[in-house]
Amino acid sequence: MEKRKRTVPAVIVIFGGTGDLAKRKLIPALYNLYLDGRMPQNFEIIGLGRTDLENSVYREKLFNDLSVFSRSGVPSLEEWEGFASHLFYFRSSIESFDDYSELEEKIEAAEIGFGERSDRIFYLSVAPRFIAKVTENIKLAGLADRLDHDRIIIEKPFGHNKASAVELNKLLASSFSEKQIYRIDHYLGKETVQNILSLRFANALFEPLWNAEYIESVDITVAEKIGVEGRGSYFEAAGALKDMIQNHLLQILSMVAMESPDIFEAEHIRDRKVELLKAIRRIPVEEVREYVVRGRYGSGTIDEKAVVGYLEEDGVHQDSVTETYVALKFFIDNPRWAGVPFFLRTGKRLLEKSSSVKINFRNQAHGPFRDIYRGDQLPNRLLINLQPGTDIRLRLNAKKPGVNTGLKTAEMIFDFGADNQYSPEAYETLISDVLAGDPSLFMRADQVNEAWDVIMPVLDAWSQGSDDLLVYPSGIAPEELIIPHAGRTDIGELTSRCLQIT
Amino acid sequence: MEKRKRTVPAVIVIFGGTGDLAKRKLIPALYNLYLDGRMPQNFEIIGLGRTDLENSVYREKLFNDLSVFSRSGVPSLEEWEGFASHLFYFRSSIESFDDYSELEEKIEAAEIGFGERSDRIFYLSVAPRFIAKVTENIKLAGLADRLDHDRIIIEKPFGHNKASAVELNKLLASSFSEKQIYRIDHYLGKETVQNILSLRFANALFEPLWNAEYIESVDITVAEKIGVEGRGSYFEAAGALKDMIQNHLLQILSMVAMESPDIFEAEHIRDRKVELLKAIRRIPVEEVREYVVRGRYGSGTIDEKAVVGYLEEDGVHQDSVTETYVALKFFIDNPRWAGVPFFLRTGKRLLEKSSSVKINFRNQAHGPFRDIYRGDQLPNRLLINLQPGTDIRLRLNAKKPGVNTGLKTAEMIFDFGADNQYSPEAYETLISDVLAGDPSLFMRADQVNEAWDVIMPVLDAWSQGSDDLLVYPSGIAPEELIIPHAGRTDIGELTSRCLQIT
Repeated sequence: MEKRKRTVPAVIVIFGGTGDLAKRKLIPALYNLYLDGRMPQNFEIIGLGRTDLENSVYREKLFNDLSVFSRSGVPSLEEWEGFASHLFYFRSSIESFDDYSELEEKIEAAEIGFGERSDRIFYLSVAPRFIAKVTENIKLAGLADRLDHDRIIIEKPFGHNKASAVELNKLLASSFSEKQIYRIDHYLGKETVQNILSLRFANALFEPLWNAEYIESVDITVAEKIGVEGRGSYFEAAGALKDMIQNHLLQILSMVAMESPDIFEAEHIRDRKVELLKAIRRIPVEEVREYVVRGRYGSGTIDEKAVVGYLEEDGVHQDSVTETYVALKFFIDNPRWAGVPFFLRTGKRLLEKSSSVKINFRNQAHGPFRDIYRGDQLPNRLLINLQPGTDIRLRLNAKKPGVNTGLKTAEMIFDFGADNQYSPEAYETLISDVLAGDPSLFMRADQVNEAWDVIMPVLDAWSQGSDDLLVYPSGIAPEELIIPHAGRTDIGELTSRCLQIT
Repeated sequence: MEKRKRTVPAVIVIFGGTGDLAKRKLIPALYNLYLDGRMPQNFEIIGLGRTDLENSVYREKLFNDLSVFSRSGVPSLEEWEGFASHLFYFRSSIESFDDYSELEEKIEAAEIGFGERSDRIFYLSVAPRFIAKVTENIKLAGLADRLDHDRIIIEKPFGHNKASAVELNKLLASSFSEKQIYRIDHYLGKETVQNILSLRFANALFEPLWNAEYIESVDITVAEKIGVEGRGSYFEAAGALKDMIQNHLLQILSMVAMESPDIFEAEHIRDRKVELLKAIRRIPVEEVREYVVRGRYGSGTIDEKAVVGYLEEDGVHQDSVTETYVALKFFIDNPRWAGVPFFLRTGKRLLEKSSSVKINFRNQAHGPFRDIYRGDQLPNRLLINLQPGTDIRLRLNAKKPGVNTGLKTAEMIFDFGADNQYSPEAYETLISDVLAGDPSLFMRADQVNEAWDVIMPVLDAWSQGSDDLLVYPSGIAPEELIIPHAGRTDIGELTSRCLQIT
């Protein structure tokens, strides 16, 4: 089904219009939506920045950026010019109220051209410290006072702990209605992540098995090969737990484990996600070390090239205790998941870039094959590769070919990406959803607050000391860096593998 | 696990040693078992026939046949000679008791050479009318009086209706213990057919879904492209119902639908199969036309070549009412399958050779996607291709790629045959099982009797008239030739497609 495509015009204002996100993601996404006929007939994009630029210079700069960063490659001149005619630059200061008034005049001028009030989308691609000022000024200038038309988009981080998140959400609520606020977690825009809900709820097969009776454990892993890549000072203030687990991995967990929404609509889905986050058992502060492992990459080898350790990265403090790897074991206290451990893992400088969800089914040790085949059988497993792989693999036991009886492990494979000529980037999906007014894939305030609540005991425990922070060599395989898990490496082995203990 | 391989010597006596089955299947199977080291150290194969042949001539003949029919191709001379040294011919008459005495001397001579009593395997590759005489003479001559050593193998048909099957089984029981009798259904030796039990019972995934709550219907189809191929006079006395449904398809149905055996052992498995056959609801004679369709191929086109109709085949009566196609709808009256139709279909001269089992799961019409995706969704389906395809395909609904939400049909595929370097033929598996004394894949007397009981009402109804016998053009697609089934061709359409009605 086509999403409800809005036919009303749109004005998209990008705070941070000359920034990195705008050039790498936002403008390419808007351009590709334009090419695909997904922008409204009438629209205007206004990039804001502090430097003084002519429209023509701004456009030329973005043309060059687009050639590098767009999935559709170098734009054809004709198509670019069509798009660029909607694109404007406005030099302005976040602090200056007058600039907001002038912005209002520009928006209204566009709307006079359109002949009707537009949807006004404010994309806050700015550092967190500016959010209060921007939202206050938007409110004061009355730029977004139509609940059914006007939306703001904000990027993480949504606070740096639960209290600051609650504070931020209060601040936003003072200027906007919750339904106007689109908090982006770009992971939720990924095709393969969205597919989790389709798999679960559009098939009769999985849901009857999707519970503690049949599932023994679940692994959610986001492994990165890159290090902090020059963003050391940013990462110092974040760490893997806040940067990845609090948002991306807990959101994926929500999708994997939530109850079925009554119907596939935003508030139903988000209600179920919040309920799931509430049902995650909070780890007692004094037991955090039994449930959580953290690590920091040392020097090592990636793709046969020597790389420096985290402490040698620019912008990193010599006495840093920031983790670049974290693994947690969660339990979900509801009837569906009683006793099933969920392992969440993420880290930088690992052997491979690989994000996946593994649903590990219980084995068939009690089945009729128990005596004959013991030892040959691996339990069933559904592997959902999120990136860069996009396939779904169901591990089965099949007859071992030959006159002998016996079993062999077989895999049924469906490659989600293989025959997809059109696979949009996450930002295309998400911006398109904002234009359509569909917040399903965005985080509501209570989701953000609850996700912080889940990780607060870990932050609290870590604030008391860091002698559990392990150092691992860059280029280590993710499976060598995991928390206690039946049949796998335990903390002792992990520790002994590591080069040094802080 | 290795099967219990018998280390005792074996003497294999083939009644019909110069016949078609021996040259096409039995000798190639024995030869390949020999190559694979699956024959006992000491063995002798004695081919019986009415013509006078020297051993050397018999061996040369079989060498030539082997080159044509063996999956391993032309034998190397060295290997062939090793095998042929175990191979003997004995001219004998089925009726002559003296010849059985002489056979006994030959067997005992071999056993003196072996230094111990051998397993004696009597393969009755003879027409049904000879079975009584052969078994009686084996009994009288005391050839097979050791229950733990001696076995007989018989081929279908096992009777031509229930009464004659019961009679045959009584006859066999008068000469042998049931545990000595190996009734072959070569379909059960196929790797992909055996895999049905592995899939069902060695995986945690399927069994919870394998019931009326989740499965809407099951299709079992054996479509052939060939016609009667010169065997018209044989087929006239059989027909598709007796030739295929009574044995192969009801056996596959048993494996698909039976309850789990407590343990994977012959008597447990065969008990469950018999229980399943007993649970099949008998079609009332007066309602047979509501549950069964039969047809006969007319002339048509196969592989772009014109082919004659069944009535034009050699050996077929002009007033024949023999069916070359039959489709039946069965219900199974037990808690697992209440209300689930099982469609069994088989026919000759269809568009393609294709045997498969389709497990059609119920749709998700009540799921959360109901409003958004209605119409895009196909229900889940597990397709198990038995031959010539050997893959297993699980049909899923996945997210349709792109900014729009929507579903597309996806298939997870595992090709059972793809990486199998060693895939034995059915007869290798089955003969190997007889040598090992494992009757799991053979039909016990009660299975045979019960399978006849299932189809007797159809035979009774058909004996009352044949105006429901349709004629279909050779080369028609099997799906155009099916019984009433939601959303598919119904009898009316089928009738109108057919060239003539007898």
